[in-house]
Amino acid sequence: MAMASLRKNLMKLLPLSSPARHSITPKAASSSYGFSTAPAGLGPTKPKEKARVVVLGSGWAGCRLMKGINTGLYDVVCVSPRNHMVFTPLLASTCVGTLEFRSVAEPIGRIQPAISREPGSYFFLAHCTGVDTDNHAVHCQTVTDGDTLEPWNFSISYDKLVIAAGAHPLTFGIKGVEEHAVFLREVYHAQEIRRRLLLNLMLSDVPGVSEEEKRRLLHCVVVGGGPTGVEFSGELSDFILRDVHQRYAHVKDYIHVTLIEANEILSSFDDRLRKYATKQLVKSGVRLVRGIVKDVQSQKIILNDGTEVPYGLLVWSTGVGPSPFIQNLELPKAPGGRIGVDEWLCVPSAPDVFAVGDCSGFLERTGKPVLPALAQVAERQGKYLAGQLNRIGKAGRAHANEATNTELGEPFVYKHLGSMATIGRYKALVDLRQSKEAKGLSLAGFVSWFIWRSAYLTRVLSWRNRLYVAINWLTTFIFGRDISRI
Amino acid sequence: MAMASLRKNLMKLLPLSSPARHSITPKAASSSYGFSTAPAGLGPTKPKEKARVVVLGSGWAGCRLMKGINTGLYDVVCVSPRNHMVFTPLLASTCVGTLEFRSVAEPIGRIQPAISREPGSYFFLAHCTGVDTDNHAVHCQTVTDGDTLEPWNFSISYDKLVIAAGAHPLTFGIKGVEEHAVFLREVYHAQEIRRRLLLNLMLSDVPGVSEEEKRRLLHCVVVGGGPTGVEFSGELSDFILRDVHQRYAHVKDYIHVTLIEANEILSSFDDRLRKYATKQLVKSGVRLVRGIVKDVQSQKIILNDGTEVPYGLLVWSTGVGPSPFIQNLELPKAPGGRIGVDEWLCVPSAPDVFAVGDCSGFLERTGKPVLPALAQVAERQGKYLAGQLNRIGKAGRAHANEATNTELGEPFVYKHLGSMATIGRYKALVDLRQSKEAKGLSLAGFVSWFIWRSAYLTRVLSWRNRLYVAINWLTTFIFGRDISRI
Repeated sequence: MAMASLRKNLMKLLPLSSPARHSITPKAASSSYGFSTAPAGLGPTKPKEKARVVVLGSGWAGCRLMKGINTGLYDVVCVSPRNHMVFTPLLASTCVGTLEFRSVAEPIGRIQPAISREPGSYFFLAHCTGVDTDNHAVHCQTVTDGDTLEPWNFSISYDKLVIAAGAHPLTFGIKGVEEHAVFLREVYHAQEIRRRLLLNLMLSDVPGVSEEEKRRLLHCVVVGGGPTGVEFSGELSDFILRDVHQRYAHVKDYIHVTLIEANEILSSFDDRLRKYATKQLVKSGVRLVRGIVKDVQSQKIILNDGTEVPYGLLVWSTGVGPSPFIQNLELPKAPGGRIGVDEWLCVPSAPDVFAVGDCSGFLERTGKPVLPALAQVAERQGKYLAGQLNRIGKAGRAHANEATNTELGEPFVYKHLGSMATIGRYKALVDLRQSKEAKGLSLAGFVSWFIWRSAYLTRVLSWRNRLYVAINWLTTFIFGRDISRI
Repeated sequence: MAMASLRKNLMKLLPLSSPARHSITPKAASSSYGFSTAPAGLGPTKPKEKARVVVLGSGWAGCRLMKGINTGLYDVVCVSPRNHMVFTPLLASTCVGTLEFRSVAEPIGRIQPAISREPGSYFFLAHCTGVDTDNHAVHCQTVTDGDTLEPWNFSISYDKLVIAAGAHPLTFGIKGVEEHAVFLREVYHAQEIRRRLLLNLMLSDVPGVSEEEKRRLLHCVVVGGGPTGVEFSGELSDFILRDVHQRYAHVKDYIHVTLIEANEILSSFDDRLRKYATKQLVKSGVRLVRGIVKDVQSQKIILNDGTEVPYGLLVWSTGVGPSPFIQNLELPKAPGGRIGVDEWLCVPSAPDVFAVGDCSGFLERTGKPVLPALAQVAERQGKYLAGQLNRIGKAGRAHANEATNTELGEPFVYKHLGSMATIGRYKALVDLRQSKEAKGLSLAGFVSWFIWRSAYLTRVLSWRNRLYVAINWLTTFIFGRDISRI
């Protein structure tokens, strides 16, 4: 009651309210709309408070680090434009409804519950706009979905900073790629592919559409023959053989998949597996075209030799490179433009700054090669760095500028566990060799498909999502894929 | 090969292609891009062909009709802007992640498989733009998602036309409703509510947001105290108590739900149930406000008495009325502006035209009241009309203008089976009386909640979705709701 009358008096002072009006905001405490006048942000931690680890990004590296961090030693603050981790190796399966989108997305609050509960740990839905290594602070801007709210800026002081902001798809400066093609890195990409595919299937069935336009609408072109492109082509051709033939019988003869690659498909796999993959893809109806894309227009792409390829859906998966944010950071760079790190994943010139995953690479002076942009590299680095930070914290050097002389322990060493790729229905490749030249086990066919499924099923992070992935696979097997366009 | 050289020659004639360029569209047959020059559409059926039923809409009435139609007698052509039916009574549960969106959406091809398989049956993703009863034809325009493709127009001749196009949310001419509020009728509405709710939860946690702005962002206002509004408020308060308190601990004290209703909530239920519902809603933290909305602005609504209600999320569920499409049709109208039908659901002045569901109502001269806009009315009408059409077809009068003198059989009689509404966690109302005045069973509490869940579980159309609804309920119970914002 006292609150209510205080509120009424306060409202009188506000320009938009007449005394006759009153508000029913549940409680009223502050007299200003919008932002406090105090400078926005989280200031430096005090020596007696817990130290703060700021993590930029919520991919494999950042999430594995957050999962492993000792929240008794550190508060964790994550800044990312998405509040979940994407289980990227299964993303291709969601485009055609084999798996559901939510089965491959893991909320960060489930990966590191302290973020939801601890008073000093946060998740901020925001982009990082700059890193101030002199003052141990990052500058951020909220993601607000545009129209209703203006984005606002705030800063966070860090004791330790982990840059795990990932990479951007490579377009090689080709005009029109960003505008007309869909990438396959985020859940919203997969959603767009699914919506567009189902839209084109329905549009091509409408009376009055010419034969040629039908073929264009239903021509799915994939550029890039790495694991993502091959897996997506395989899923797509399986969707066509199994679901389109049944559910879109009128137009089934018009739909085709073309995979365009400048060199060889699956170049990191061994010869025998590559040949097997090629044979299987061709058998399931995927056209393999060797070519270089010169120009992308709204309904066709032009290859280097002048060939025109009309398309209804264009998926672009030609690998990744440093994002503009990473390029613009004034930090040492590794070959290829990634943030340069030493053997312990530290950024040498910036105290308390670390970089992991696709955005980082070993500095030339370490003599080590820049590691491939793979989930398993990022995951291993996140795990290693969590251990490092926990050790530093236990040594009482968690706060800013305390860790300069700490014994760093063992450097990070990457051991490749092997590569896997599925190529459609009950077929997959598993290459357990440590490098392309090494000897070791390589498998193709049903057994590897089974290994592939089992491996993923046990690596999906939460029990909830393991259950959903298993059930999605089961219902796809029994009932076919879901074709609702929602 | 002959085709390929023909193609090359044809390409020369096209303005955009030089002879050096060639295309790799999988097959080439037609020489024109885009549309055939022939008038677009499906022309009248011939006497020896199957007759064609055209169904406008894919809601409860249209889908139940399509499910029941004898596809040996008729080809079915469905025209609707969505390719699935929405299981509307469960839609409120999807807004907060209790159920997944796809668990409540049923593809039309699953409801009536002939649409995917029969050469003369189709689903067209399109709006109906006009009905030409003189020529037994409907005019349509494709839904194309805007930017990439222009919508195009086509016509379909019908032997029988079933208008089941549903209704539009009522806004009572209040300014700003369409612009700022979210309805709760389609899956994309539920998706928007979920995205906005999760966005506001995250934004309110960002440093620098004032107390007042936090309260605004996290104030969820529901206008309309019918079953949809009450169910949504109940789900939302359950989400707050169970999930927000755990997963958004920093802001849990700022989130509130207000339900605004001009009269009484759940006015169709009996007094005792209404009181029970009110008590339960208040107990779970929902503020019930009696008021009339005068104006809706981007961050607040103004009530008739001048009260200002700031909000972060505004859900509008004040019932439905005739859509502009229905209003503009030159057909007889029932009281309230719906399409007028006789006791057999025929539109009297238009031969072979029927109307079912929320878009139709008994003509005044029938002496029957316009039925409420309920799923069970629509479903029963669809079932009845399928039977009527099958009888007409078996009598050899399936084609246009043949059925004028057919014996119509029993008129449609609606028997109310009772009403159900859930009010949050393990609580529901079940009113099995046939009308508000009649005597009969009415239940409230856990038993009715159990009846409610079982009733829905067995009425969800396909086994696939029954399984998913059960699993969604189970995982929500065990793991809590999914808060990934995808």
